[in-house]
Amino acid sequence: MSVTTPRGFRASGVTAGLKPSGNPDVALVVNDGPSTAVAGVFTANRIKAAPVLWSEQVIRGGLVRAVVLNSGGANACTGTLGFQDTHATAEHVAEALGTGAGDVAVCSTGLIGERLPMDKLLPGVTAAVDALDRDGGDAAARAIMTTDTKPKSTVVNRDGWTVGGMAKGAGMLAPGMATMLCVLTTDAVADARTLDVALRAATRVTFDRVDSDGCMSTNDTVLLLASGASGVSPSTAELSAAVAEACQDLCVQLVDDAEGATKKVAIQVTGAASEDDAVEVGRSVARNNLVKTALFGNDPNWGRILAAVGTTAAEFESDQLDVAVNGVWVCRAGAAAEDRSKVDLSGRDVTVHVELHAGADKATIWTNDLSHGYVHENSAYST
Amino acid sequence: MSVTTPRGFRASGVTAGLKPSGNPDVALVVNDGPSTAVAGVFTANRIKAAPVLWSEQVIRGGLVRAVVLNSGGANACTGTLGFQDTHATAEHVAEALGTGAGDVAVCSTGLIGERLPMDKLLPGVTAAVDALDRDGGDAAARAIMTTDTKPKSTVVNRDGWTVGGMAKGAGMLAPGMATMLCVLTTDAVADARTLDVALRAATRVTFDRVDSDGCMSTNDTVLLLASGASGVSPSTAELSAAVAEACQDLCVQLVDDAEGATKKVAIQVTGAASEDDAVEVGRSVARNNLVKTALFGNDPNWGRILAAVGTTAAEFESDQLDVAVNGVWVCRAGAAAEDRSKVDLSGRDVTVHVELHAGADKATIWTNDLSHGYVHENSAYST
Repeated sequence: MSVTTPRGFRASGVTAGLKPSGNPDVALVVNDGPSTAVAGVFTANRIKAAPVLWSEQVIRGGLVRAVVLNSGGANACTGTLGFQDTHATAEHVAEALGTGAGDVAVCSTGLIGERLPMDKLLPGVTAAVDALDRDGGDAAARAIMTTDTKPKSTVVNRDGWTVGGMAKGAGMLAPGMATMLCVLTTDAVADARTLDVALRAATRVTFDRVDSDGCMSTNDTVLLLASGASGVSPSTAELSAAVAEACQDLCVQLVDDAEGATKKVAIQVTGAASEDDAVEVGRSVARNNLVKTALFGNDPNWGRILAAVGTTAAEFESDQLDVAVNGVWVCRAGAAAEDRSKVDLSGRDVTVHVELHAGADKATIWTNDLSHGYVHENSAYST
Repeated sequence: MSVTTPRGFRASGVTAGLKPSGNPDVALVVNDGPSTAVAGVFTANRIKAAPVLWSEQVIRGGLVRAVVLNSGGANACTGTLGFQDTHATAEHVAEALGTGAGDVAVCSTGLIGERLPMDKLLPGVTAAVDALDRDGGDAAARAIMTTDTKPKSTVVNRDGWTVGGMAKGAGMLAPGMATMLCVLTTDAVADARTLDVALRAATRVTFDRVDSDGCMSTNDTVLLLASGASGVSPSTAELSAAVAEACQDLCVQLVDDAEGATKKVAIQVTGAASEDDAVEVGRSVARNNLVKTALFGNDPNWGRILAAVGTTAAEFESDQLDVAVNGVWVCRAGAAAEDRSKVDLSGRDVTVHVELHAGADKATIWTNDLSHGYVHENSAYST
């Protein structure tokens, strides 16, 4: 049930006709309170889509009544007119809900560079308002899909309160601050400042550590809405932990459904002199096309992993690096160790473990292999 | 004739049996003087192959009598024993030529992480010494190939002196200081210091601006040997220009023959506030897998190009960016302009032009598309 599992939320997903496929493409999430506190994190890409620019403004006040989301078009690189389209969409939602446009966040996803067909979108928004339901979470999660093969949602239960969430994302998955579209809801009592602390702590170690294809989107948005309907006020730490659990669950679903991927890969970096070093090394391995194609070919080519580690500024000595692939230490002290033929890469889940022997910090980056499916899907997307 | 076109050089290429294919795999280039001045640039990867560590030492004295190169194995991540193998190879060449091992540079290319079969390599080196010839340049260029489909060589003629060169490189093409293996020769009179200035000036704007797949090798080496046999002493500027011309010619050949590539792509960045900005933007576009797959699909997806530009720290305003693909300005002022259907991407050569409107500096980065061929070749390389 995702975003409607926490009390105080209604949602819907409808078909406005933005997608040639005729699949649902407009989602709406409404917070019926009593509180409408909100926090958000957005793409670090300097080319920001109109809905990102809009929503950044909207959440500045710390209150959001509704989030309207569309697939079938990113509304990015669309200039002033594109921004006006976002504004009109928020206005349309606000009128129907009897609130102001400044209380409505907007998210869009799809092809960059084209205007949204407002003659289809606005009637779709009206239909989404009419379809709002306490059980609408699944329909909403379905309506934000693009090349996703399945909807992604999560529920984290706590004592007397819950966190729910939905996300979409399949390509252009590499975070600056967040990646893809994600709406999280909770019926916990929390003000905007607490939500912000909890959300940033959660995304830093979850969405920010997903790097499917190294490509950062113009539209990434993660919003956290709190209704307070449970009447329970968890501590910031408790809230952070629950939000992080929800984010992590969604991250794994995103990586598992990345475009064309045949592997879900965890790059575990340990023995780092700092957490930043661990993240830098993990990301460098995750982004290396030669490592990624080798994994697609079920090839534990640790030499390519070392070559990727060698491009970083992290603290390490080249003759002290150990690398394990799915538990087999194919490289010790920077040279060949166990026979690579012992590595079983036939499954979908892969763990690459890089031990730097430079300290006690660590991090895990989630990524995918680079497959024929990725090339196919992304060479045929806009044409 | 490549490296043997300048007077004072002999070369050879023979089959030692390092490659399963039975193709030539050992090359030798000898400088018969009167001068043996040398300069070199090497990979910026911190995981350096044994021959890189060796050759960095050797050229420190400014004199090199011979360069021995092998394909069929990178001798990288092979520990102390791998370094001893490189030393033994240099020693073997030195004995045959009646010089010291410290006068012999070594280059290796192939799979990372495995020892070289010295029982095959050393007899191959002996055969290469026996085969040395004033016309041996082409054979040498052929013997250093790995996944290259054709040998790469160049000759730049000047008044009374020449620069020759050969290179190999097909994957792991992204430079720190240089990329792949390249030996340049000249019969100009020049000391090691002058050669160093000329070579660094040339590689900075040529090899350092090739970025085929974002992956930096452990073995990249570019050596420039001067025999002085012409008796002509060009100015440093004249020498730099000729060396840069030779490097640029080899770069274009490298990009044209990159693994699985169907496109040779020039990312031209103009209007930059600094040359560094232009290089950063060009490289970001060149490394973006979504841009690369779109080009493979003949899709002028300028939104992905802008999204890549947006991840850089270069000076620009997002609503002032112009993008042309093969001469058609599909994006003006950060939004859609000419119809993308006007872009003809059916040919092998592609030019992506990004105008930042932030200054007068510029740079061109050379890259390739990301194709099924790349995935196929690199998922099947070591197994």
